[in-house]
Amino acid sequence: MTSPEAREEAVLEAVRQRREQVNEAIPDELPIKRPERLYEASRYLLDAGGKRLRPTVLLTTAEALADAEPLSTEYRSFPALDESGPIDMMAAAVSVEVIQSFTLIHDDIMDDDDLRRGVPAVHKEYDLETAILAGDTLYSKAFEIMLETGAKPDRIVEALGVLATTCTKICEGQSLDVTFEERTDVSPNEYLEMVEQKTAVLYAASACLPAILLGADDETIDALYGYGLDIGRAFQIQDDVLDLTVPSEQLGKQRGSDLVENKQTLITVHARERGVDVDELVDTDDVDAVTEAEIDDAVAELESAGSISYANETARDLVAQGKDRLEVLPDNEARALLCDLADYLIERGY
Amino acid sequence: MTSPEAREEAVLEAVRQRREQVNEAIPDELPIKRPERLYEASRYLLDAGGKRLRPTVLLTTAEALADAEPLSTEYRSFPALDESGPIDMMAAAVSVEVIQSFTLIHDDIMDDDDLRRGVPAVHKEYDLETAILAGDTLYSKAFEIMLETGAKPDRIVEALGVLATTCTKICEGQSLDVTFEERTDVSPNEYLEMVEQKTAVLYAASACLPAILLGADDETIDALYGYGLDIGRAFQIQDDVLDLTVPSEQLGKQRGSDLVENKQTLITVHARERGVDVDELVDTDDVDAVTEAEIDDAVAELESAGSISYANETARDLVAQGKDRLEVLPDNEARALLCDLADYLIERGY
Repeated sequence: MTSPEAREEAVLEAVRQRREQVNEAIPDELPIKRPERLYEASRYLLDAGGKRLRPTVLLTTAEALADAEPLSTEYRSFPALDESGPIDMMAAAVSVEVIQSFTLIHDDIMDDDDLRRGVPAVHKEYDLETAILAGDTLYSKAFEIMLETGAKPDRIVEALGVLATTCTKICEGQSLDVTFEERTDVSPNEYLEMVEQKTAVLYAASACLPAILLGADDETIDALYGYGLDIGRAFQIQDDVLDLTVPSEQLGKQRGSDLVENKQTLITVHARERGVDVDELVDTDDVDAVTEAEIDDAVAELESAGSISYANETARDLVAQGKDRLEVLPDNEARALLCDLADYLIERGY
Repeated sequence: MTSPEAREEAVLEAVRQRREQVNEAIPDELPIKRPERLYEASRYLLDAGGKRLRPTVLLTTAEALADAEPLSTEYRSFPALDESGPIDMMAAAVSVEVIQSFTLIHDDIMDDDDLRRGVPAVHKEYDLETAILAGDTLYSKAFEIMLETGAKPDRIVEALGVLATTCTKICEGQSLDVTFEERTDVSPNEYLEMVEQKTAVLYAASACLPAILLGADDETIDALYGYGLDIGRAFQIQDDVLDLTVPSEQLGKQRGSDLVENKQTLITVHARERGVDVDELVDTDDVDAVTEAEIDDAVAELESAGSISYANETARDLVAQGKDRLEVLPDNEARALLCDLADYLIERGY
């Protein structure tokens, strides 16, 4: 039995190794060309960093399906499960990351956020027009890139269907999120549905796309989609918890900013159901004006309402459920890594 | 030989008949569902009107390819050219119109235009967030709809490739258009390249998509793509001419507004090359402050530099070239209609 620390270290190393390969592939799939300003803006956030968790899920799932030793196979010419030709699995991985980047650019405009990944948001570094267009360019590029995997046409069609439906759901989720800001009666289930659409579907797509492209059966595809939905929701819930519990320096932004900005999280939704006057937890609407003591008091009140424990438990249950679904996969090292990745999403400190 | 008036009347009637069918299909392909506000905003411009020229080109090209009497075939179950099953050609037509609508919503944000099709722009009627999201939703919906034509998988893959590349080019063209606003040395060829990307590629896609979906050969697909590029550029040039020559009441906006707002058109680009000080043609930057007499003087100067004639001639040449390309099609009534449609795009009064 390996220690939890050793397992987390192994996950981080596995993510890092795949991230390097993904980072190398991005300029190949999305070269800076004319009009340069548009493509530079499109690449700006992609080049600014990111853990590449979704591509890592996608590439590791492919390895598990193929029963291949992790990192032993060329992602650019990955063997299909039947006699059909090799698949450019890296193209699929980049496509998913490109979708993620498009949504971040447009979300930052909608929320008028100034910073992302430690650099100015695209609409701040460039301008509103360029940011809208950069997002739109990434959108169609993701489809172009996914079209180049070399999979059989019926599998490409299915993969593009998943990609298109995923994008639609992300928009629906983002729209729900906006309407939730004006409501005080959002239930935990409604909140989880929103998170499923806004965040989890892209994890679900990442997990099931290699199964589609490689020619796995429907049961496997569905199980992997479910795994992605589960860990994606857990990931978002953990983000909400971290916003309250991790020191500001480590978070890279003010701790408790979700509370200050009256964002709904699973924690506030639960607390409100328990009678906590969530809107009065902090006095100010200004992230720059809030004190650490105010956040401490708010966290203590949410803690005593059982809301933070509730969020932790929900995330843990989702991760357990997601890991169970992986039993459709061959029992191999890559599958174990997908389990550890799921754990990492809720155990990570930031 | 039919008179030009009778031919124009016949084109308008043909457009009207297809428009009615397209208008009926839009709510089926894009129903208002939860979250309602998002889908209402997505449908807002589509429901506000539009000539449906691109779907008309698509549906009429399908008829010409199939050698079918215009309007004699169910668009929802259109016969392929080989033994493969029927094609939902209407889905393809709606997909193209949905792309067009997405670009209008995002363009209006970028230009901060207040009105579109006689109603407030989506970001005015709703808000910025909703307008960005509504455009993004239409984007993925267009792909979802195009996936439902029932064509053979390899043809669907090719069709989606055209759709994705088209969207990328539209973004590139829009980006060029923005950078052109700050330049005074844009050449007519550069301008035409921008128009090709921003406007003409969607006509090109409309003309070649039925050939792809029905299984025509590559020569036919390429010729139809060229036809669309030619008439699409002619369409945009004619728009630029109309902005100067049609009375404001008929245009539905101030005549000469492109000049007032310093927008580049083929006319101003040509005039600048001829030494006209285009920026000084009208004194004001405010569309509400300009007088008809100022516009008259500006038009006279552009006329005497030969710039309006040059634009008219360029559009006429493009239409002639486009019509020549249609010789790959069987000689039938639908092909004649595609020729008349091309003429209509540059003969229309508004």
